[in-house]
Amino acid sequence: MERRSVWMDDAIAALAETARRFVEREAMPHRVRWAGQGFVDRAFWRRAGAAGLLCPSIPAEYGGGGGTLAHDLVVFRAPLVATETGFGIGNAVHSGVVAHYVLAYGSEEQRQRWLPGMADGSVVGAIAMTEPGAGSDLQRLRTTAIRDGDHYVVNGSKTFISNGSCADLVVLMVQTRPGAGAAGISLLLVDTARTEGFRVGRRLSKIGLPAQDTAELYFTDMRVRATDLLGAEGAGFGYVMTQLARERLLLADSAVAVAEAGLAETVRYTKEHRVLDTPMFATQHTRFELARCAISTRTARAFVDECVRKALDGTLDIASASMAKAHASEVQGDVLDRCLQLFGEHGLVLDRPIARMYADARAQRIYGGANEIMKELIARSL
Amino acid sequence: MERRSVWMDDAIAALAETARRFVEREAMPHRVRWAGQGFVDRAFWRRAGAAGLLCPSIPAEYGGGGGTLAHDLVVFRAPLVATETGFGIGNAVHSGVVAHYVLAYGSEEQRQRWLPGMADGSVVGAIAMTEPGAGSDLQRLRTTAIRDGDHYVVNGSKTFISNGSCADLVVLMVQTRPGAGAAGISLLLVDTARTEGFRVGRRLSKIGLPAQDTAELYFTDMRVRATDLLGAEGAGFGYVMTQLARERLLLADSAVAVAEAGLAETVRYTKEHRVLDTPMFATQHTRFELARCAISTRTARAFVDECVRKALDGTLDIASASMAKAHASEVQGDVLDRCLQLFGEHGLVLDRPIARMYADARAQRIYGGANEIMKELIARSL
Amino acid sequence: MERRSVWMDDAIAALAETARRFVEREAMPHRVRWAGQGFVDRAFWRRAGAAGLLCPSIPAEYGGGGGTLAHDLVVFRAPLVATETGFGIGNAVHSGVVAHYVLAYGSEEQRQRWLPGMADGSVVGAIAMTEPGAGSDLQRLRTTAIRDGDHYVVNGSKTFISNGSCADLVVLMVQTRPGAGAAGISLLLVDTARTEGFRVGRRLSKIGLPAQDTAELYFTDMRVRATDLLGAEGAGFGYVMTQLARERLLLADSAVAVAEAGLAETVRYTKEHRVLDTPMFATQHTRFELARCAISTRTARAFVDECVRKALDGTLDIASASMAKAHASEVQGDVLDRCLQLFGEHGLVLDRPIARMYADARAQRIYGGANEIMKELIARSL
Amino acid sequence: MERRSVWMDDAIAALAETARRFVEREAMPHRVRWAGQGFVDRAFWRRAGAAGLLCPSIPAEYGGGGGTLAHDLVVFRAPLVATETGFGIGNAVHSGVVAHYVLAYGSEEQRQRWLPGMADGSVVGAIAMTEPGAGSDLQRLRTTAIRDGDHYVVNGSKTFISNGSCADLVVLMVQTRPGAGAAGISLLLVDTARTEGFRVGRRLSKIGLPAQDTAELYFTDMRVRATDLLGAEGAGFGYVMTQLARERLLLADSAVAVAEAGLAETVRYTKEHRVLDTPMFATQHTRFELARCAISTRTARAFVDECVRKALDGTLDIASASMAKAHASEVQGDVLDRCLQLFGEHGLVLDRPIARMYADARAQRIYGGANEIMKELIARSL
Repeated sequence: MERRSVWMDDAIAALAETARRFVEREAMPHRVRWAGQGFVDRAFWRRAGAAGLLCPSIPAEYGGGGGTLAHDLVVFRAPLVATETGFGIGNAVHSGVVAHYVLAYGSEEQRQRWLPGMADGSVVGAIAMTEPGAGSDLQRLRTTAIRDGDHYVVNGSKTFISNGSCADLVVLMVQTRPGAGAAGISLLLVDTARTEGFRVGRRLSKIGLPAQDTAELYFTDMRVRATDLLGAEGAGFGYVMTQLARERLLLADSAVAVAEAGLAETVRYTKEHRVLDTPMFATQHTRFELARCAISTRTARAFVDECVRKALDGTLDIASASMAKAHASEVQGDVLDRCLQLFGEHGLVLDRPIARMYADARAQRIYGGANEIMKELIARSL
Repeated sequence: MERRSVWMDDAIAALAETARRFVEREAMPHRVRWAGQGFVDRAFWRRAGAAGLLCPSIPAEYGGGGGTLAHDLVVFRAPLVATETGFGIGNAVHSGVVAHYVLAYGSEEQRQRWLPGMADGSVVGAIAMTEPGAGSDLQRLRTTAIRDGDHYVVNGSKTFISNGSCADLVVLMVQTRPGAGAAGISLLLVDTARTEGFRVGRRLSKIGLPAQDTAELYFTDMRVRATDLLGAEGAGFGYVMTQLARERLLLADSAVAVAEAGLAETVRYTKEHRVLDTPMFATQHTRFELARCAISTRTARAFVDECVRKALDGTLDIASASMAKAHASEVQGDVLDRCLQLFGEHGLVLDRPIARMYADARAQRIYGGANEIMKELIARSL
Repeated sequence: MERRSVWMDDAIAALAETARRFVEREAMPHRVRWAGQGFVDRAFWRRAGAAGLLCPSIPAEYGGGGGTLAHDLVVFRAPLVATETGFGIGNAVHSGVVAHYVLAYGSEEQRQRWLPGMADGSVVGAIAMTEPGAGSDLQRLRTTAIRDGDHYVVNGSKTFISNGSCADLVVLMVQTRPGAGAAGISLLLVDTARTEGFRVGRRLSKIGLPAQDTAELYFTDMRVRATDLLGAEGAGFGYVMTQLARERLLLADSAVAVAEAGLAETVRYTKEHRVLDTPMFATQHTRFELARCAISTRTARAFVDECVRKALDGTLDIASASMAKAHASEVQGDVLDRCLQLFGEHGLVLDRPIARMYADARAQRIYGGANEIMKELIARSL
Repeated sequence: MERRSVWMDDAIAALAETARRFVEREAMPHRVRWAGQGFVDRAFWRRAGAAGLLCPSIPAEYGGGGGTLAHDLVVFRAPLVATETGFGIGNAVHSGVVAHYVLAYGSEEQRQRWLPGMADGSVVGAIAMTEPGAGSDLQRLRTTAIRDGDHYVVNGSKTFISNGSCADLVVLMVQTRPGAGAAGISLLLVDTARTEGFRVGRRLSKIGLPAQDTAELYFTDMRVRATDLLGAEGAGFGYVMTQLARERLLLADSAVAVAEAGLAETVRYTKEHRVLDTPMFATQHTRFELARCAISTRTARAFVDECVRKALDGTLDIASASMAKAHASEVQGDVLDRCLQLFGEHGLVLDRPIARMYADARAQRIYGGANEIMKELIARSL
């Protein structure tokens, strides 16, 4: 299990260890409480910033870690493999997605305004694309932003927004030319504290992911300054497509990492747990199931590693990233299901990491573009 | 979907409808609260009794419904297909299992003492077999009952006990001849209110099944009168084996019923929900997935119905019951997983029945004897 | 394994035994030779007729067995479970399909002309629908039959025709109103011996099914008398749709029967074959695989039996028949694949029935309407 | 599809192209005839030698190509992806296995005697381990070699021997110390032309692999010179274990290569073949199936490539090689099964490469150590 990927050097391994310890010390004691309240304490983000775990791949000039995708991966994994998915997914969205939108498409002024705060944890970021009833169909946005002088007037709503109820900054996808379809999609940087007409709706209770802040957002005649447009008007759809490969790779990597962690826990359990005086691990069914899970995780890891190498080289194509996301999330679901079964009734109790991993995993085949969408993208490449 | 099984006559269909309405009116308004507290209100059991939904297959002379296994099935299904699994599983254990132990092995006095209360809801029953760390290995019981005059002195603990924290009556599996293995297994009828040394431990938080009262029980020098022995001393293991076929069939039937309900909901959703102006149901992938789920549920239903017919005839063998349980619970898991995926992110939110069905389903492949144990039993019959 | 379906009475069981013995005595000694030549000896059909194994469900007044679908099933199964698929599939087509077209849509004169010969084996029947390059798309027929006085002039070709190179009678699907689509589809009864312009092309070499005569047919200005039209002009498509439920049930039943036979052989083998002095059957993986196969075949059997009962009652719907065909053929493929694996290298050698069963099974998911078409039909019923 | 693995440089790619053309020109015109006779023409081996396709990774000083495992892989793949499995598997055994036993454990004299002939095709090699009834249980050999002066007297038999009926050199596994188990296993180099008591039995007819010479061998008081012992007496089991990782990687690589070829053919077919005037490729089910197959082959390729890199570095462990073999052969079977289904009835006819690929693939999950044995080895590493 404990193998180091080819793209991981000593510095990255050290960062991984730092992240692991930070999570163990600072997050895990609060895990149950965060799960109960449905979000990670706001103060925790600052501690994470102080520990250097926010924005690992944002340049140092903006307060970030100055690292690469590799740094992101080992930092994002740390809470996820420990089943603290609230900060786990929250940080992947905050540091791995939102900060990169600002970095890639923001003006120098926008970068200076937002990135240092995102890196120190004083600003929490979210990105709002999905709308109620609309599924993943980005081209049929109903949230409109109509230009009125030097402001946009925004009306509409969003749902399934990670970090939604806590976010200080929301990258908001809007339709600036109603009727224009994809050509009218734009992104706005919404400063939630200073924006009237912005309202947080319910936090959604989901299968697993209890501490992951997932909220509905409502916009009623919300005025956003024209200078808060991110990049060019009408260019939003292209920006989203461009960022997707990276985001899918984050999901793929964490999916394999959690599967590996679940398998390692199950190997330990079956070696310790005895049935009729024999360790479970000694029974053939157990060995075959674990071997099967090992095959699944190792082969998925090999492919994700290949994709990470390409991403670091700048040569990752969207079809490969889509394969990685679809495959890794299927493997995660299958491996955790098989592992849990070996725990029997013990595996059902949420005290056990394996139970939490199982429940948390279901979203992965849907989040970040459902696997059916991945298959459409893959088919286009054939 | 709406097909009537061959063993269902008009009277049984009417009882099914009564149960459905009762659940809708009396249980569903409390579902979220019960899920939050981890158990069904105690008072609800009396209402269920008054409505004739407890002990449907216990003879009328003991206050029961005087029906058959067929009556049990339609009553137990009603809350389960509505995703109120607290009472759903609770009643299957109370009426479908515990009451039948009392009926089958109890003295006339014991039947008179317990069954009328179980039928009217003043007594809630549980059965306690599994022990911490012991999995499903009934022959290595560590809970001992040592004869001391006209009492047994009981020490030990149990876990994963359905209805555990609320039960008035616990059918308790104990070892009365330590070292004798299966030959020393006996069952005691424990009146929890009047028994010192009986203590309820934690209620367990599980994947799904939020309102299902699942508790740990502890026994410390607990004195149980010798007259509360159920059946003969040392005969407990045989009793358990005898009852298993029936219990597995209850699980199998409800597994298929819930899969059918989940599929029906998904057919409705995909016909209503539109993607790019087209109902999801019109896309080939959706149709093929639903067809596959329909094949799975219909074939599972045919086999379970065949087993029910045999059970009503008294000819059901343990291998067939084990096949039914293993197969139906696999089908339930697979169908609900595929259905949920069609809902996309909506399927992850616990407001949706499909999300709750999915989470509740995971236990089914483990409860009532893990499917691996079923396979061992099936292999013996080959 | 040796369970009798509910629709099987003593007379049918006796017929099954007759068929089994006939196959063992009269067919199996020739199996290898038939496989080499690619078809069953022509003379064998007369012996089968003399033994009462042709046209079991055709009324006695036309020389048939006067039985029902149940009689058909046990007769058709006999060679298939013995891996003599040449006569097995040949007779299902001849007796189970072609004779029923003549019976259902033929004039009294046509019945008298053809059915007695089909029953005694002097006439071998085939049905020709599929065309090269056209797959299963019956509505785009390119084989035309243009009326010319009291004849049709037929041009075109057919492929994958079972019994094709040996057939005396071909029920030929033609387009009598080019451009009319389904409304122009008609069926002709072609007397191959007396028809000029009829030519048999290649016999096709397939995966498995070595003795099954599968041929291409060519028609060049072939003149067929107008009186050889079967039923009404333009009614052919409706006839085909009507017959499909029955044909799919034949396929489903034989699929389960062969899976049962393969499983029984594998149970025997694993009990006899020893690895490291232990019978393979004693190893957990073997037991679990066999249990899984037993679950699959038993549940598939239950559903097919339910469908057979409905067919005998005249209440079988097309969706159920499609489910039976799709499910049973999937089960057949899966069970035989798992069983073969347990034989190791021995399972690959065609001396072993399991190897032949495996190779023969692949066609079942495609023949008689590919399973994808079944899913389309099933989805329409939801 | 047409991606170059990281371990493939220009020289290797050129060799791959040479091999592809040679197969197309020299082997494919004879494919059907070789399939009919059950073996590749003896003369063809000399042509392959002349073309530089034998012993690619044997040092040039012994007449070999002087290449590495990478050279082996591209040469062995060429006939396999073209469905000429007779030479495909034959050469993998001859060049990839047998020659490496001689190279690794042979004396300088033995190397000089055999390798140049193996490289020019005048000598065909086989390796004989499996015995009738013994499966893969190498430690219970019944073929004994009893020392008698400066000879061994060998009695016993072998089966499933690739290149068996044509081999000039057989590396024969024998028991030289009956009763000693693995410690008595030795290897002999048998010169079949000059050895009395050596007899070739039947060539076995299998599922697929029609031109692969697979034979039984019998040894009756066969005298082999003591100087023909390969390596040390009693060291044979260790030699076999050492060579296994390499052999399994050959199998894994070819499994993925054939799956890739089958998928490429299916993409082509579904783009050309039209159903109702629409290319099959445009239907969602087809696209999703192909996407799934693309995911499977790409992820399997990534893992095999990782293993090849390790093997070239000398760091490949047995567990990883076992994973590669088990996984790749599962992927091959699954991908070809799905692809074939998309061809419908056309996929069943052996004229089509997809049909041959499907039939040939079944052996892969069994040959070279059944996948169940791989799982045992993998479990040991956990």
